[in-house]
Amino acid sequence: MSTEAVKVGLLGVGTVGGGVLKTIRLQQQKLSERLGRPVEIVKALVRDPGKKRTVELDHDLITTRFEEVLKSDVDIVVEVMGGVEPAYEYVRALIEKGCHIVTANKELLARHGTELIQLANRHQVQLAYEASVAGGIPILGVLRQFLRTNDISSVSGILNGTTNFILTQMEQAKLPYHEALKQAQELGYAEADPSSDVEGWDALYKSYILAQLVFGEALPLNQARRRGIDSLHLGQLTLAHELGYRIKLLAQATKAEGGVQLSVSPTLLPLDHPLAQVQGADNAVQVSGNIVGDLLFMGKGAGELPTASAVVEDLAYLLTQRFSPHPLWRERQGNHGVGKEGTWSFVYLESTGLQGTPEQILHFLNLGGVSIAKQRIQYDWANVLRIGVIARGFTDEHRAALQRDFGIQTDVFPVISRGEEQDILGAKGREVDGKEIHFGY
Amino acid sequence: MSTEAVKVGLLGVGTVGGGVLKTIRLQQQKLSERLGRPVEIVKALVRDPGKKRTVELDHDLITTRFEEVLKSDVDIVVEVMGGVEPAYEYVRALIEKGCHIVTANKELLARHGTELIQLANRHQVQLAYEASVAGGIPILGVLRQFLRTNDISSVSGILNGTTNFILTQMEQAKLPYHEALKQAQELGYAEADPSSDVEGWDALYKSYILAQLVFGEALPLNQARRRGIDSLHLGQLTLAHELGYRIKLLAQATKAEGGVQLSVSPTLLPLDHPLAQVQGADNAVQVSGNIVGDLLFMGKGAGELPTASAVVEDLAYLLTQRFSPHPLWRERQGNHGVGKEGTWSFVYLESTGLQGTPEQILHFLNLGGVSIAKQRIQYDWANVLRIGVIARGFTDEHRAALQRDFGIQTDVFPVISRGEEQDILGAKGREVDGKEIHFGY
Repeated sequence: MSTEAVKVGLLGVGTVGGGVLKTIRLQQQKLSERLGRPVEIVKALVRDPGKKRTVELDHDLITTRFEEVLKSDVDIVVEVMGGVEPAYEYVRALIEKGCHIVTANKELLARHGTELIQLANRHQVQLAYEASVAGGIPILGVLRQFLRTNDISSVSGILNGTTNFILTQMEQAKLPYHEALKQAQELGYAEADPSSDVEGWDALYKSYILAQLVFGEALPLNQARRRGIDSLHLGQLTLAHELGYRIKLLAQATKAEGGVQLSVSPTLLPLDHPLAQVQGADNAVQVSGNIVGDLLFMGKGAGELPTASAVVEDLAYLLTQRFSPHPLWRERQGNHGVGKEGTWSFVYLESTGLQGTPEQILHFLNLGGVSIAKQRIQYDWANVLRIGVIARGFTDEHRAALQRDFGIQTDVFPVISRGEEQDILGAKGREVDGKEIHFGY
Repeated sequence: MSTEAVKVGLLGVGTVGGGVLKTIRLQQQKLSERLGRPVEIVKALVRDPGKKRTVELDHDLITTRFEEVLKSDVDIVVEVMGGVEPAYEYVRALIEKGCHIVTANKELLARHGTELIQLANRHQVQLAYEASVAGGIPILGVLRQFLRTNDISSVSGILNGTTNFILTQMEQAKLPYHEALKQAQELGYAEADPSSDVEGWDALYKSYILAQLVFGEALPLNQARRRGIDSLHLGQLTLAHELGYRIKLLAQATKAEGGVQLSVSPTLLPLDHPLAQVQGADNAVQVSGNIVGDLLFMGKGAGELPTASAVVEDLAYLLTQRFSPHPLWRERQGNHGVGKEGTWSFVYLESTGLQGTPEQILHFLNLGGVSIAKQRIQYDWANVLRIGVIARGFTDEHRAALQRDFGIQTDVFPVISRGEEQDILGAKGREVDGKEIHFGY
């Protein structure tokens, strides 16, 4: 066994960086056995050297100047500082110097991956990023190595642990959104500025990376359909649940005729759908292949050690592989991810003015050609009327008319259907008589 | 691109073999792109050339004589005939000739893997067997490539689709075991002779393979704890469900102090446990690593195409790798997998004679030092008394005494606990007074 250690530089010693240090120390023997030589951290870039950390760090290793990492004799650099700048400049400089890169930085990849991959190929270094998607779940490795013969039609999942934790809390503890968010922040699941998580950016970056890996292309980020959970409220979750669904922040990358579709949206999943079972900060990814069928991968999506596990496994795997050029990524304009016609949606109607009865409102929709599979109606103590319907054919014109005629606010969410939904009202344009309408409450 | 095809021989054109043929034809373009040359089946060994198949086969390819496969110019042979003989002789001969082997044959590997791996290493050929465990789920690849830095403490799961289908049918349709089995046979989920599945052999072979792969050792098969579902009855499933658990045929490979434990047994899982959600013929594997935490992998565990997917993905992966010796397997005597002291079990009591009231029976257990966390009691129309308890400290002496004093038949099953079980009766040897006993019915 050679005694020359693998020299590793570390950019960032926050939560994940601390976990990487701990993991390399704890699993040193396994790493040495596998690689034939030990792994040694030789330089760690931090912002604040005085900050208290959960992991001990030799003072000689710490630096606040990137140049010291760059000029040190590192073979491979782990980038876990997050954010685009200055990570982008640092990673570029390191690749140009011939360093392999292991990164957990989804935003960096989603914004500059296309270019960084070309640069890495040109300099014959490896760029590894298993940790950037779904924490400790080795989903990228599986897709790159073991699902290459299948035609993959979609990769979807719950890719953001913070928002899944918030949704789980809202549903289980009947908390309004802002209280659940506060709880997530207190427990360290959400950051002080939670916008990247709750606005759906984080999940979008990850599904962009999945799309590039699986389909070799993705939409430019600004063309993807993105909606977060920050405008969701408890009434929507409750009505959805009564209708037999759970609302999850679902990220989807789907191969469609017009190109690859990307979307992140609060989405209704049937309660017995595997992704509806994913609770708390867990992540799950569902892959649909034409030969293998549906596969589901589930695990901890974030946190110090699960993400560190992906970083260190990635690092070790990289060191056992010969260099081969990374398949190129490309961005392509395309289908904006508008829902297919004829699919069912969850239409949520809310009115405080009580300008119409539920019967009138549903009759109005029915006359307007909207098919309704299921409905639930709630009044609360403040006389707020809430109607949730699983509907088909609901358009912006219906939305405008409801606002105008009944003072109703409308919100529409996609539904992952089991194909069981049927029009219970028999909507056929204007043929249906009001008396035929049956209500489920 | 070289035009020289990869020449593949096929041993067996049954369900999986037919799926492999279909997959190679359907995915030919993807395979060629990945491998740089096409994949061609050059010989297929069948037992009955006149048999009707769902896949067309050129007559020139078919043979009933293994010698013709052996002397043909194959690079790689896919063994999907199943069973130990004559597969064992054929695979040996092919390895000795220098052929790579892709097999889905778990029994062959569990009985002769140790030796076949040595033989393959000696002849520098690869032995690939992703398809032998959990159908299309690439669990072996993940464990070999992407979870190598973690210390894995256990790999457990639902590894047999047939028995999971039967259990799901029993539970959902309230069918007795034999009717659910008959249904599984009619639907093609179970074979005419279902013993390998329902007696737990199939799941044991798979968990043996997982143990060898993850721990580098396993118990000899005859030392593993193995119990099938063939003696389960509906009353047990129903009582378990009322107690908040679902009975699944759980296969476990666990690293323990005395060595690797292997067990297959109907086991109670809390209803919200991820493995309790696995319905029908699906498979799922849960891996526990010290850094990554728990990961769950779920998918179709059997059937023509999911297994064929694993075979063809394995074949393509193998062809992109340079030869490296397969880590050796070894068998080691060890811990027989006896349950740890202090763990909770499901004790099922059944009596037709009514020689005691439930109160007397539970009081008897309590006096005998058995801790009881939960209990459910049922009488049916034929005056059969059934008691299900989640208990701790139940021994063979209790069993014998219950038989002797009350004419009660007892059955005990392991419980995967969430750690929430508590002794509701406060059993402290003989100190508890009968009046303190509270019944949950």
